[in-house]
Amino acid sequence: PDTLRIRQATDRQQALTKPPGSLGRLEQLAVQLAGLQKTEQPTVDPVRITVFAGDHGVCEEGVSAFPQEVTAQMIANFAGGGAAISVLAKQLDASLEVVNLGTVGEVPELPGVRDEQIAPATANLAVTNAMTEDQVCAALASGDAAAERAADAGCRLFIGGDMGIGNTTSAAALACALLNQSPESLVGPGTGLDTAGISRKSQVVDRALKRHGDNTDPLTVLASLGGFEIAALTGAILGCAARGIPVLVDGYIVSVAALLGVFQQPALRDWLLFAHRSAEPGHARVLEALDAKPLLDLGMRLGEGSGAAVAVPLLRAACALHNNMASFADAGVSNKDTAS
Amino acid sequence: PDTLRIRQATDRQQALTKPPGSLGRLEQLAVQLAGLQKTEQPTVDPVRITVFAGDHGVCEEGVSAFPQEVTAQMIANFAGGGAAISVLAKQLDASLEVVNLGTVGEVPELPGVRDEQIAPATANLAVTNAMTEDQVCAALASGDAAAERAADAGCRLFIGGDMGIGNTTSAAALACALLNQSPESLVGPGTGLDTAGISRKSQVVDRALKRHGDNTDPLTVLASLGGFEIAALTGAILGCAARGIPVLVDGYIVSVAALLGVFQQPALRDWLLFAHRSAEPGHARVLEALDAKPLLDLGMRLGEGSGAAVAVPLLRAACALHNNMASFADAGVSNKDTAS
Repeated sequence: PDTLRIRQATDRQQALTKPPGSLGRLEQLAVQLAGLQKTEQPTVDPVRITVFAGDHGVCEEGVSAFPQEVTAQMIANFAGGGAAISVLAKQLDASLEVVNLGTVGEVPELPGVRDEQIAPATANLAVTNAMTEDQVCAALASGDAAAERAADAGCRLFIGGDMGIGNTTSAAALACALLNQSPESLVGPGTGLDTAGISRKSQVVDRALKRHGDNTDPLTVLASLGGFEIAALTGAILGCAARGIPVLVDGYIVSVAALLGVFQQPALRDWLLFAHRSAEPGHARVLEALDAKPLLDLGMRLGEGSGAAVAVPLLRAACALHNNMASFADAGVSNKDTAS
Repeated sequence: PDTLRIRQATDRQQALTKPPGSLGRLEQLAVQLAGLQKTEQPTVDPVRITVFAGDHGVCEEGVSAFPQEVTAQMIANFAGGGAAISVLAKQLDASLEVVNLGTVGEVPELPGVRDEQIAPATANLAVTNAMTEDQVCAALASGDAAAERAADAGCRLFIGGDMGIGNTTSAAALACALLNQSPESLVGPGTGLDTAGISRKSQVVDRALKRHGDNTDPLTVLASLGGFEIAALTGAILGCAARGIPVLVDGYIVSVAALLGVFQQPALRDWLLFAHRSAEPGHARVLEALDAKPLLDLGMRLGEGSGAAVAVPLLRAACALHNNMASFADAGVSNKDTAS
């Protein structure tokens, strides 16, 4: 962040025709973006949304309310425009791309879908490392390449989304390992498990953590307990920050990917804006670890980057107000200090 | 609300390609709007924003951080495009109109500003009734006429905004009288009073309440403790509901106007959506009285309808998702029930 730009933007907010501070977090967002983008006129457009998809071997433990074939089917739904993130991207006029890192179901060639498959699925993290070191590197590289495409396209904001049946199990295991938490505190219903299902999922995460041990090196944790799409998200987030693109972080899965990135490079934290608090109960603990206060709390828990997409207009409003409001001097409005 | 439409919309949400409930409050918003608008395809466009402005005699008690001339100056700023609500309305492609109900400062003829002045200001509510019965009727009628213009223009969502130096004093007095609360619980810093200023403002409200007595009839309370713009907001909100237009309620001032409307006609409540929780501390108590859970909590406290304007994209997202997402059947995606 550029401290001169931050000071300039802070001064400008004080001069605009409103009681100082009365736009609340919208003021802070504009100042933060001005500092990150090193500009007097922050903007989030064009917005890039990249959804990373991958299947999880741990599904054989019965950890999800939905069948594994849904991952591949949803990739087709993203491309066809019928998924939540497709509808939101269109409404936002944001470019949407989908990266397929490996699905059990077959995915035909589809417009807007990149085939970067590593394997049909990760290995079952309850019994063995989810990924080899080579697979982790491939997934991180896929994410970094997405960041590079966003930079090449001049994008000013990046949203990563996730699709992968079983990925809340992986995310919970990752967060437990990184934050030294018990499965109970980070395992939730995901797409809709009942109480018995959550209990079974907790036991699966517990087995995974016992197998994993207490290593907290982010790349080791990722290989042991992660997923292709989660590793790619970490790569994309790190890659965006390295290229000067702020990242609007979605829900539980993306926040865990961001947490891995921050463990890897603490300075990454400056580049992260947090869109929403998911209804998935473990998200609150991950946000706390990231010292993040998300903008929205609407009970969403869909993934795909949908919560971040819904928050984009808040950033747009913050930028428009910062860039286009009149100052007291320009508008001939009496300021507080000149009170008669 | 149309119970058949609500059931249809609820069924549709269950059929869309997402775990049921995973869009959280966006699902509820779409269902609510479908019921209110009696349609399968809810929409909030076109959006009408009407800002009502008026001056307050109670300013002579020194209750505001800003001088009274600011009310008239800000009307010019609304028309000139430099105010927060002007910037937001333009960004949203919403029509913005300003209704001047009476200002101490002179306002020249300006495009988009309707001159419906009742008097230069209300009387000082600390010492006498703020408005005569005729003045209350005139202000309510101005608001109702704004609702009629919105209906004639085919608007599907109405936002009322407020401008009036001193109006948090009036709003606090009104809420205290309606809800039988102490001034301390509802008086706050407004545009930026310090602790001593808040204490003085509380004493002014206390004098007003002692003068007023315990009458809770909404029109009597309005005449005794209200403001022109607050009465007009009440008229506009009631007028929109009567014409089948949902209202997105802004912050403290507009919520108090809505509370007056609900005291007058309890069925009004169904037509109200709540945009945000203001940083003005009394707002929480008013929201509670209205059983309202606002969508945003961004620490805003500007008025002008700005908090509601910032929330419009959330309603647009809710409608777009409801109207445009594919169903499990259409997209060929396996549902939870068919889990293998």
